[in-house]
Amino acid sequence: MILGIDIGGANTKITEIENDRYKIHHIYFPMWKKKDELPDLLKSYNNDNVEYVALVMTAELADCYKTKKEGVYDIINKVEQSFNCPIYVFDVDGNFLTTEEAKKNYLKVSASNWVATGKFVSEFIKESCILVDMGSTTTDIIPIKNKKILAEKTDLDRLMNNQLVYVGALRTPVSFLANKIEFRGKLTNLSSEYFSITADISLILNKISENEYSCETPDNGGKDFKSCLTRLARVLCADLNMVSEDEIIDFAKKLYNKLLNLIRENVDSVSKRYNLNDIVITGLGEDILKDALTDYNIISIKELYGKDVSLATPSFAVADLLSALKGRRFP
Amino acid sequence: MILGIDIGGANTKITEIENDRYKIHHIYFPMWKKKDELPDLLKSYNNDNVEYVALVMTAELADCYKTKKEGVYDIINKVEQSFNCPIYVFDVDGNFLTTEEAKKNYLKVSASNWVATGKFVSEFIKESCILVDMGSTTTDIIPIKNKKILAEKTDLDRLMNNQLVYVGALRTPVSFLANKIEFRGKLTNLSSEYFSITADISLILNKISENEYSCETPDNGGKDFKSCLTRLARVLCADLNMVSEDEIIDFAKKLYNKLLNLIRENVDSVSKRYNLNDIVITGLGEDILKDALTDYNIISIKELYGKDVSLATPSFAVADLLSALKGRRFP
Repeated sequence: MILGIDIGGANTKITEIENDRYKIHHIYFPMWKKKDELPDLLKSYNNDNVEYVALVMTAELADCYKTKKEGVYDIINKVEQSFNCPIYVFDVDGNFLTTEEAKKNYLKVSASNWVATGKFVSEFIKESCILVDMGSTTTDIIPIKNKKILAEKTDLDRLMNNQLVYVGALRTPVSFLANKIEFRGKLTNLSSEYFSITADISLILNKISENEYSCETPDNGGKDFKSCLTRLARVLCADLNMVSEDEIIDFAKKLYNKLLNLIRENVDSVSKRYNLNDIVITGLGEDILKDALTDYNIISIKELYGKDVSLATPSFAVADLLSALKGRRFP
Repeated sequence: MILGIDIGGANTKITEIENDRYKIHHIYFPMWKKKDELPDLLKSYNNDNVEYVALVMTAELADCYKTKKEGVYDIINKVEQSFNCPIYVFDVDGNFLTTEEAKKNYLKVSASNWVATGKFVSEFIKESCILVDMGSTTTDIIPIKNKKILAEKTDLDRLMNNQLVYVGALRTPVSFLANKIEFRGKLTNLSSEYFSITADISLILNKISENEYSCETPDNGGKDFKSCLTRLARVLCADLNMVSEDEIIDFAKKLYNKLLNLIRENVDSVSKRYNLNDIVITGLGEDILKDALTDYNIISIKELYGKDVSLATPSFAVADLLSALKGRRFP
């Protein structure tokens, strides 16, 4: 069995691959609070069947580490403590490093998760495509051509080149989507306060379930339909006595269209620049991406591999890539 | 002497008017923490010279009161405890009520501060004009025609009719102004995280002083020029090693233009609708409003009455209006 482990700041995801079967574990594990318990967690996934561990991480960027170096070292040490098999760490160039090499090149193994997804997609799904991954907070748009990941390296360059859009399925403040929207036939100003987020829109329009609304609400209120409507009404300085449910649903649709346009514009631009028309989608926001990218040929990781993989692609990707490398992958 | 008192949620402002002289006191007094100490504060302004008190309030909307009624009653009771002269409470129709009447009509004396400013402007500055008041968080655009304040009553209606813009000199998240901006010649996506606010732009462009940056910073960092640059760079997912000071200043100017456009569009719309071209400006954002409204005939309360009055217009307004009513006003 090969384990793919993705250690993030708030969540750790573990993919177990054995032959052609896989199982994914999502564990809410806030590293800034519990990093010393990480070996205990990981050990519970260790057993005699585990032959290799493939590792990616972003938790080294969390508050609990002063530098990337400190984070990378600590995380690798803790993984080493937890397993007695070989451990390989995935780097931003798409290679697996031994833990010793990884510590020497700690900058290269930091935040390589999206490269893992990109490489997995280019190897096993589509050689040339745009990988679009919508998570809770951002959307990554990654051009891949002839198995080469052409994405910019820094977030600034990615923002400048339509490869990073700060819009996600959950955490984006509604006020980022627009500062005015037509309401009751009038172009209406919106509040800029932190009253409502895209999770409210996603839930109202049935793009996510209450369970998938996995971040905190802006008012610490509920995640049910009515609570989402209440928060969204507040963006108009209104409450459900002043505006009807239908009016808020219509308002949600108008904001949702702004969100779709933002995604579409950026993907269009990457598509033109690299002459790519096939899109591989993944992440919590797959359904939203489908609404945005109707003009493209869409390949869904959720449909190919199941929802669990779509929500934890990097951990699955490194496990699958290492399987192939070790001749264990079933086609 | 006549006292004008404006009791807000976070600040209490007191104007002392005696003959043609006035003095303004700004007191940071968070009612949600200290409301029981309000009488002590007010008593320190009581003396034998105080003949009348004129009162406006918004603190009844603060978290520390369950309902407006509870808030209005408590605030009036505390003012009554503090003074032994007649107290008049200003209402949203522009009248002064006795404390007894005010309690009976508690909804009418709630949040009447902008009406006080409007009435003062229409009585003593300009019969027909648009009053534009830019505070820390919002901009009020109030049409006044032949001494009649024509503004909508609810915030929803004001948002729908260009009379309330959720943009202020300090607290507005930069990400509300735009979700993309030209940077290094490329239309660049911005972060939607709460990284930077208009106070950073205002300070960088010298529209406010470090002292006037009176709200908290998003990162709990400093309010100096460099700290503001650092926060603004973060909106591009960058730091001052990746982008130059000049580039951030240029970025600040582009965002500032977005802010000016928002204000201008809304004022233009009110101007057309009511056929009004004279603008009376007040509030912390007067200098910003001057930049936005270059096509109009501008009358500045700061220039007419001084900066203190511009920053505390409602308290000055009720004191001055009551002076006139009592035949005490000097022309």
